[in-house]
Amino acid sequence: MEPIYEIEVVKIDGEKRVVKKDIVVREIKLDIVLNGKKIASLMATPIDQEALCMGYLRAENIIKDMDDVKSIKLVDDGMRVEIEAKSDMRSVEKLNSEGVVVSGCGKGVSANIDPDAIEAKVIKSDFAIKSEKLSNAMGQFYTECPLYEETGCVHTAKLYVDEKNHFIGEDIAQHNTIDKAVGKAMMSGVDLSNSFLMVSGRLSSEMVAKAVMHSIPILASRTASTCLGVKIAEKFGLTLAGFVRGKRMNIYTHPQRIV
Amino acid sequence: MEPIYEIEVVKIDGEKRVVKKDIVVREIKLDIVLNGKKIASLMATPIDQEALCMGYLRAENIIKDMDDVKSIKLVDDGMRVEIEAKSDMRSVEKLNSEGVVVSGCGKGVSANIDPDAIEAKVIKSDFAIKSEKLSNAMGQFYTECPLYEETGCVHTAKLYVDEKNHFIGEDIAQHNTIDKAVGKAMMSGVDLSNSFLMVSGRLSSEMVAKAVMHSIPILASRTASTCLGVKIAEKFGLTLAGFVRGKRMNIYTHPQRIV
Repeated sequence: MEPIYEIEVVKIDGEKRVVKKDIVVREIKLDIVLNGKKIASLMATPIDQEALCMGYLRAENIIKDMDDVKSIKLVDDGMRVEIEAKSDMRSVEKLNSEGVVVSGCGKGVSANIDPDAIEAKVIKSDFAIKSEKLSNAMGQFYTECPLYEETGCVHTAKLYVDEKNHFIGEDIAQHNTIDKAVGKAMMSGVDLSNSFLMVSGRLSSEMVAKAVMHSIPILASRTASTCLGVKIAEKFGLTLAGFVRGKRMNIYTHPQRIV
Repeated sequence: MEPIYEIEVVKIDGEKRVVKKDIVVREIKLDIVLNGKKIASLMATPIDQEALCMGYLRAENIIKDMDDVKSIKLVDDGMRVEIEAKSDMRSVEKLNSEGVVVSGCGKGVSANIDPDAIEAKVIKSDFAIKSEKLSNAMGQFYTECPLYEETGCVHTAKLYVDEKNHFIGEDIAQHNTIDKAVGKAMMSGVDLSNSFLMVSGRLSSEMVAKAVMHSIPILASRTASTCLGVKIAEKFGLTLAGFVRGKRMNIYTHPQRIV
């Protein structure tokens, strides 16, 4: 299934009114089937579904890395991913244990938005980057967002793992963008401990929690964080940078990693 | 509790590095207690909590209007709303029945993002407005968003109910903005059948479903809709307008209401 879909719209421009073709992004319910059992459904844009599932399962502590994964199959015209993997059953059970309607994300992460309830390690990486590098990366950010360019309707995450490699996740759902980028990095076998992550949207608690669950030391955005986002980043040792625009930025927490 | 919170950030500007005060928006877990029983928790910005709950309960078919409500109390420093109301128990049970991780919203709406599963009436209103009016309203949209101006980190919805009245909802979570604006209109006793709604963000399936659940005939945004948003709007008779910028706009569905 293509991630985009062609529709007809009525285009109004002052007095003019014409029917034209336009492109919209698809949103599907993606079923994740782990060892024969459906464990979650994610509303997602149908592109990079396997990477999304790998990132999602890692963020939720269900798998540790690709070594745990025996097979991944995308079936049902892209609506279903079937995974055989060594998995943490306690974390699978936790997925559906709490029902909080969250602010920009979903249930899978929701159990973890209370800072005291997040089961993640404090990030102790002494990785650091120059502020100039972060500024340059943000300047480049919107130059490679193919789905955004076509539809104007997706979020983007970019995970920079070293001088040469970065991985891009695009999705209608902001939290999925991180899981897609991380999933791609996992599937490429690269190490994430010296990486930084840039996202197109706000640094809400779910986005910050996702970065923490993935142990990524630096998370940056062109826009703001929330109070709870700052608290989670503070507690878990994440360097959180907002309003990265031109040479300026605001470092909310753990500024030692931006030099 | 105030919706904003003062923190210290490290502001970087090229070589300069100073510690300054900054404002971030709060995100709390708001418990909704209906007739003595907690039925949902919403991640939300602590402003207009009572209106949020009224809009949320109406969108979920739990109450019909303010006549169903005996009392509303905001307690626990703004973290909990206690409501006594005549309520539809079947809809309360449905709230927690399905677990889909949604793209920009939460579980309460998630049971309804399959167009075939949405329990709403087709909107048959013959209300119509001039495209010029929609353009002018969008031109004014960002002139009254106090929390957005302070924090750069909230979404906004504006519900225009007649020539004189409009109601504003601001929240970190996009879906809450609609419930807040509708809740305020409900609490003011106005009729919504000839209203139009403008939102700051994308017209994802949840946003479109919210408008449909509230039977609002027109939903507009500066930005795009998704494929599923268009399908839901088509099915339920909602006029959906995207990319409302200057004199231009794209009408995705039911264009007869924009003349």
